[in-house]
Amino acid sequence: MSGGHLFVVGVGPGDPDLLTFKAARIIAEAAAVAYPTTESGAARARQIAAAHIAPGAREIGFLVPMRTERGPGQAAYDEAAERISAELSAGHRVALLCEGDPMFYGSAMYLFERLAARFPTTVVPGITSLTACAAEAGRPLAARNEVLKVLPAPMPPERLAAELATCDAAAIVKVGRHIDTVRAVLREQGLEAFSVLVERATAPDQTVTPIAALPDGARPYFSTILVYRGEEKWR
Amino acid sequence: MSGGHLFVVGVGPGDPDLLTFKAARIIAEAAAVAYPTTESGAARARQIAAAHIAPGAREIGFLVPMRTERGPGQAAYDEAAERISAELSAGHRVALLCEGDPMFYGSAMYLFERLAARFPTTVVPGITSLTACAAEAGRPLAARNEVLKVLPAPMPPERLAAELATCDAAAIVKVGRHIDTVRAVLREQGLEAFSVLVERATAPDQTVTPIAALPDGARPYFSTILVYRGEEKWR
Repeated sequence: MSGGHLFVVGVGPGDPDLLTFKAARIIAEAAAVAYPTTESGAARARQIAAAHIAPGAREIGFLVPMRTERGPGQAAYDEAAERISAELSAGHRVALLCEGDPMFYGSAMYLFERLAARFPTTVVPGITSLTACAAEAGRPLAARNEVLKVLPAPMPPERLAAELATCDAAAIVKVGRHIDTVRAVLREQGLEAFSVLVERATAPDQTVTPIAALPDGARPYFSTILVYRGEEKWR
Repeated sequence: MSGGHLFVVGVGPGDPDLLTFKAARIIAEAAAVAYPTTESGAARARQIAAAHIAPGAREIGFLVPMRTERGPGQAAYDEAAERISAELSAGHRVALLCEGDPMFYGSAMYLFERLAARFPTTVVPGITSLTACAAEAGRPLAARNEVLKVLPAPMPPERLAAELATCDAAAIVKVGRHIDTVRAVLREQGLEAFSVLVERATAPDQTVTPIAALPDGARPYFSTILVYRGEEKWR
């Protein structure tokens, strides 16, 4: 059989209106769609793309390992890759759906690395939560020759401080339970006034909160902090 | 008059198929579209969005200053803001078209800062050249808790080296005439093998070249270098 083709498709941050034409068409033409699910049964990428999935398409939901380290989660990706490769080997087109962009902190790259060498593969970029947050906050991410850093909140606070001290702009991602640590670093660096927290960007319940106005004890999941001190206008 | 609304719309990196539904609908409904032009008369953002511009829409092309420093270019933005605000004051919807994403190294933010306080304004995120490059190169930008840096090539080579030494992943943007300097830094840092150069991502004449295979003397304009040493698979 020939014709099997894997499409790794970014579906954007949450608003179905932020799908690209290319993503929507590829999803509509796919014989099978694959997507991550959580233990509670949620499948956000599928939900975002739902309107475009063909009525007869086969669906391959796979549980994403919660741990991000190597080891425990790998069997889940092996199994998902096996199910997807069965479709591809039979000559079908498969759309692997990814929240945001597949190559920007996505788990799709673990399936990509297992399948791209064996089957024709196309990656379709998606709107990242990064640019969605900046759009909703009405603030630049970065301009001109400024350095922009994407800093995962779980890093040691000393390193977070050092990285923030040497850039004009930053997005602190995966904030969640690290909010108190991150906030302390921002305060020490004199950056609270230049920082906003965006929760659930582009979703109906989205919020944008200046860090200085965030209540103590808040536990913002699915959130990003944008720091920008490049242009005076946004100081 | 009321009803004037400014939409700052990202049209993506080049392929018209990478517009979002939201961007296309807003462009189609706009009474006027505004976009940057170059001295040669090119208007890439307009070209990407062309199929969606309403036949009777008024067009506001404005010459973008070549210098990015404050000062000389500001008059051009003042004048463009004036022309756009005339439409908004008359109660019309204006779509300001931006290549890539408006808040990611875009010049649209200079018009945004002049107009957003005076008129209702919505920013629509677009696919960045960053994620488009990673998709076309078939490589991750960053994964898990890795630090990703966006580093403009014109910075001093010592700083470029220092920033590269402390991250897992980087995108070096605005490479152009700085290629020799950047390449020397990558070589010194032992990063040539982890780096690819992407020119004109998603355009028909796109190229993806491992840095080690790039001919000496090449002058890659409109290009980005992706550096990734996070996951063994891509080493």
